[in-house]
Amino acid sequence: MLSNSFTAQLNIQYPVIQAPMAGGATTSSLVSSVSEAGGLGMIGAGYMTPSQAREQMQELKQQTSTPFGINLFVPETFEVNQKEIDEANQILSSVREKLDIPLDHQVEYPDAEKTEKVFQEHIQVVLEEKVPVCSFTFGIPSKKVIAQLKEHNVYLIGTATTVEEAVENEKAGMDAVVVQGSEAGGHRGSFLDKEKQNLVGLMSLLPQSVDQVSIPVIAAGGIMDARGLLASLSLGAAGVQMGTAFLTCKESGAPDIYKQAIFEAKEDQTAVTRAFSGRWARGIENSFIAEMKNHEQSFPNFPVQNSLTKGIRKASAEQKNKEFMSLWSGQSPRLAQDLHAKDFMKKLAADAEKIKSNW
Amino acid sequence: MLSNSFTAQLNIQYPVIQAPMAGGATTSSLVSSVSEAGGLGMIGAGYMTPSQAREQMQELKQQTSTPFGINLFVPETFEVNQKEIDEANQILSSVREKLDIPLDHQVEYPDAEKTEKVFQEHIQVVLEEKVPVCSFTFGIPSKKVIAQLKEHNVYLIGTATTVEEAVENEKAGMDAVVVQGSEAGGHRGSFLDKEKQNLVGLMSLLPQSVDQVSIPVIAAGGIMDARGLLASLSLGAAGVQMGTAFLTCKESGAPDIYKQAIFEAKEDQTAVTRAFSGRWARGIENSFIAEMKNHEQSFPNFPVQNSLTKGIRKASAEQKNKEFMSLWSGQSPRLAQDLHAKDFMKKLAADAEKIKSNW
Repeated sequence: MLSNSFTAQLNIQYPVIQAPMAGGATTSSLVSSVSEAGGLGMIGAGYMTPSQAREQMQELKQQTSTPFGINLFVPETFEVNQKEIDEANQILSSVREKLDIPLDHQVEYPDAEKTEKVFQEHIQVVLEEKVPVCSFTFGIPSKKVIAQLKEHNVYLIGTATTVEEAVENEKAGMDAVVVQGSEAGGHRGSFLDKEKQNLVGLMSLLPQSVDQVSIPVIAAGGIMDARGLLASLSLGAAGVQMGTAFLTCKESGAPDIYKQAIFEAKEDQTAVTRAFSGRWARGIENSFIAEMKNHEQSFPNFPVQNSLTKGIRKASAEQKNKEFMSLWSGQSPRLAQDLHAKDFMKKLAADAEKIKSNW
Repeated sequence: MLSNSFTAQLNIQYPVIQAPMAGGATTSSLVSSVSEAGGLGMIGAGYMTPSQAREQMQELKQQTSTPFGINLFVPETFEVNQKEIDEANQILSSVREKLDIPLDHQVEYPDAEKTEKVFQEHIQVVLEEKVPVCSFTFGIPSKKVIAQLKEHNVYLIGTATTVEEAVENEKAGMDAVVVQGSEAGGHRGSFLDKEKQNLVGLMSLLPQSVDQVSIPVIAAGGIMDARGLLASLSLGAAGVQMGTAFLTCKESGAPDIYKQAIFEAKEDQTAVTRAFSGRWARGIENSFIAEMKNHEQSFPNFPVQNSLTKGIRKASAEQKNKEFMSLWSGQSPRLAQDLHAKDFMKKLAADAEKIKSNW
């Protein structure tokens, strides 16, 4: 049996969380399929408006009575500096030319005050819709927010890229913490020093974190099958969070061209870049990453750079050109499967039992 | 039981190899203790002369009748370019000043032809002394050398940092291959493109390699205890190779100041540098790594740069100043223990059984 006290707390069958990938992959169909199959489906609401998040929650509650969760980005301080933006747009102009798109003068720059207000609205939606699990990336919410959520028995999950960040999450009252190994695809969740990549492999990060906190530790990064699940449990994890593995599932909202890029990638063909968003993130190396390599340190911080490249990413996807899209992926693309989420979960559980019986 | 077909082939009790750390850590006392305790002790002969290697083999055979192995660096092409050397020495002069040592005009530059000749002599010594296991780093030896060793039933282990390198090792006839995750301390074994760091986390590299080769795969990188051992076996490894874990054992020849640096380090305080040797290697970040960061790409290739920094590393150790020594370490220094190798092995086996019984 794969159940443990962590699965009991969350009221799920398997210690498997579908990573809350922001950007469209976590359709209601994916989230509900995972939850119905005994895992924990998660809405990646990092780029959603509160009403979009509420709409998906309501849709999900019609599709399943099993628990699911939501992930929010904790607002961080940033500045909108016109000179920095002009310089970045200058560098990005070569890409815009290739895609034959104009500089978007209508781009809506993020506003720190508004971002904080939207975050508070998201928290209200979580409370009102009675979502049982809420996880956070890019930081730890305020004491007030944590107290509010705890009062309503929301299970809180933080994100860490170092042992120290895991400890801070526990101190702040998180119920569990995801530790994100260097293998992980997408954004690094680093928050104590967001300029750092903190690329510690899961084989190292996981046991060292488990030794320093007493809350359940959830392993993330490169885990794509039953082998990774059992390895994580061996290292002391209470469960795993898998992103890329669910991103290529049939129910995922990722564009086909993106899924195909993962199916064709090899383990050494991803890179960590800050050129897409202003925050370090791992994706499949393409022309955008390569061409921006020498400029990435000069780009504005997240989420400003993210707004500057939005038009580029969108046009690239529309033109079915994978070279200028953010192809977030972990380091195990060779293990990606093209399955229904339900079948993926079934195979995962069966394979895990098989490995265990061979011990 | 931890034994499997791999331990049967090697005639050892536990699927645990003590990494062949070149540079003095693998004393006969360490190697024999590990082998006597049921693992496979290994001589790190990368920087030894053939007669030094022979001497240690003979010493070991007096200390134990259990199997042990040796590791050799496969010679690679390199050029000795005086202009490059002068530029490197110019950059290194600030460090020499701090350590109050003069530029060593007597430094013996490596010679590609001689290096190849010495390698052939090493192979002869392995054959004559009937060492049962020989592993290789930085490449795959020639067909002729492989045939010679196989004829004498030497068990051959290659090193890989990517799936493709693992496949090349199998094709060349290696009996097993170590896959080196990004967590690993010391030199990256990359050889298909030695300029690349190939930093793939073990959680990703291991299962993807296991899927592509049929020879036993040995996991290396960040593994320091029974949790890492069982995780590796879960991911499909036939065994593990541990470096840092044995480097801090009492029998290791590493200087106390070096061991102490590992005991005090955290998981995010290592870095990959080519400033020490001209080849990428992971060590605890110190002043040398930090100060040379912006210059490292201009330094000559291994082993030329290694000879240029030899005096610096030696003086730094003699002055008990850890800031200019190469403090190779994996990403799990928090798990380092100060034990006799025998006790380390005993604890490892007992802990592994305990974890398995909890499954």
